[in-house]
Amino acid sequence: MHKLNKNVTMSSASIPTIRRLPSYLYLVRKAKEEGIEIISGTVIANELDLEPIQVRKDLASTGIIGKPRVGYKVTDLIDAIEKFLNWDKKHNAILVGAGNLGSALLGYKEFTKNGLNFLAAFDVDEKKIGTSINGTKVHNISELEAFVRNEDVQIAVLTVRSGIAQDVADLISEAGIQTIWNFTKVKLKVPKDVLLLKEDLSSSYAVLSVYS
Amino acid sequence: MHKLNKNVTMSSASIPTIRRLPSYLYLVRKAKEEGIEIISGTVIANELDLEPIQVRKDLASTGIIGKPRVGYKVTDLIDAIEKFLNWDKKHNAILVGAGNLGSALLGYKEFTKNGLNFLAAFDVDEKKIGTSINGTKVHNISELEAFVRNEDVQIAVLTVRSGIAQDVADLISEAGIQTIWNFTKVKLKVPKDVLLLKEDLSSSYAVLSVYS
Repeated sequence: MHKLNKNVTMSSASIPTIRRLPSYLYLVRKAKEEGIEIISGTVIANELDLEPIQVRKDLASTGIIGKPRVGYKVTDLIDAIEKFLNWDKKHNAILVGAGNLGSALLGYKEFTKNGLNFLAAFDVDEKKIGTSINGTKVHNISELEAFVRNEDVQIAVLTVRSGIAQDVADLISEAGIQTIWNFTKVKLKVPKDVLLLKEDLSSSYAVLSVYS
Repeated sequence: MHKLNKNVTMSSASIPTIRRLPSYLYLVRKAKEEGIEIISGTVIANELDLEPIQVRKDLASTGIIGKPRVGYKVTDLIDAIEKFLNWDKKHNAILVGAGNLGSALLGYKEFTKNGLNFLAAFDVDEKKIGTSINGTKVHNISELEAFVRNEDVQIAVLTVRSGIAQDVADLISEAGIQTIWNFTKVKLKVPKDVLLLKEDLSSSYAVLSVYS
């Protein structure tokens, strides 16, 4: 589902651990809303169908230590996970390809409330350029390079059609963006210093088609 | 990213193999468009950054055998993968929750051209009920049970907000749908005979936030 191809300084946590942390955070935030102050690793494990030892290891990688036989203070746990994921900071992004999927991502509150900050969207469609989609203005893709030079953009979300995906990825990396979140089907070639994460809904659909 | 909780007769292929098959299919379909008639496992492996032995094993699970030192006939390979994935058949589905993400999925050609057939969408929003989104009519959710009784629906795609996700999942499984593709953040509880696949975009965003 994902692939990292950047020679990054690895985090103290493994990729699978990082991928599980949002589900812990969601659960603990919900506990907080319900007025719960302390939560145990075992309760979290039961809710998420994981082994308690797994949960404790995953949470330990954020730096938090639970009290034996008691658990974690809910507010501390939320802070620890948010901090570890950098979800307490803004991540400036642009979206390229303002079609159906792109528009959905621009309005996806789960991202925006966890720091993802869309500065602009880009498209080639004259009908979309100049309009706003879920609060983000759509620019002509010809303005992308100049925009990136003037703004601090960390992430490009790529939701263009497959036929132009590689060309757009080249444009994005030449403009200096270091991270591409690829929602197209194309296996992109990018420079080694660009972090590439591929999201592939087709692979889940394959599992459904085989088993349903 | 996904989780199966149904006691299904396992396919001859592992889940990771099934998840890789769409990328092979995409590549081989593209080769066909370019007029290529024979493709080798090594070429596929190089394009997708996989080991050749992995590619040959994955493809063998669809029943196809390549010619040593030559490769696979492109048209045969496409047929074998499509057949194995059941992408040569229709999969009748409903979508529940016609918001941004739901609307994007209704129009996602990558699914529809591989057999996913949305019969209807359901929502509670009076403004949406009766309209069509990307060619699929939106019904009042109160009609869901009767609809499912009268139509042959295999898959429910769940894109409602988290607060009502479990209630809607209950409604869906009681109506008799055997497969739920869950795009919400909620860890759903469903009967053992329901196949549940969870799609979690937040876990990818977590990886991006840590490394970008």
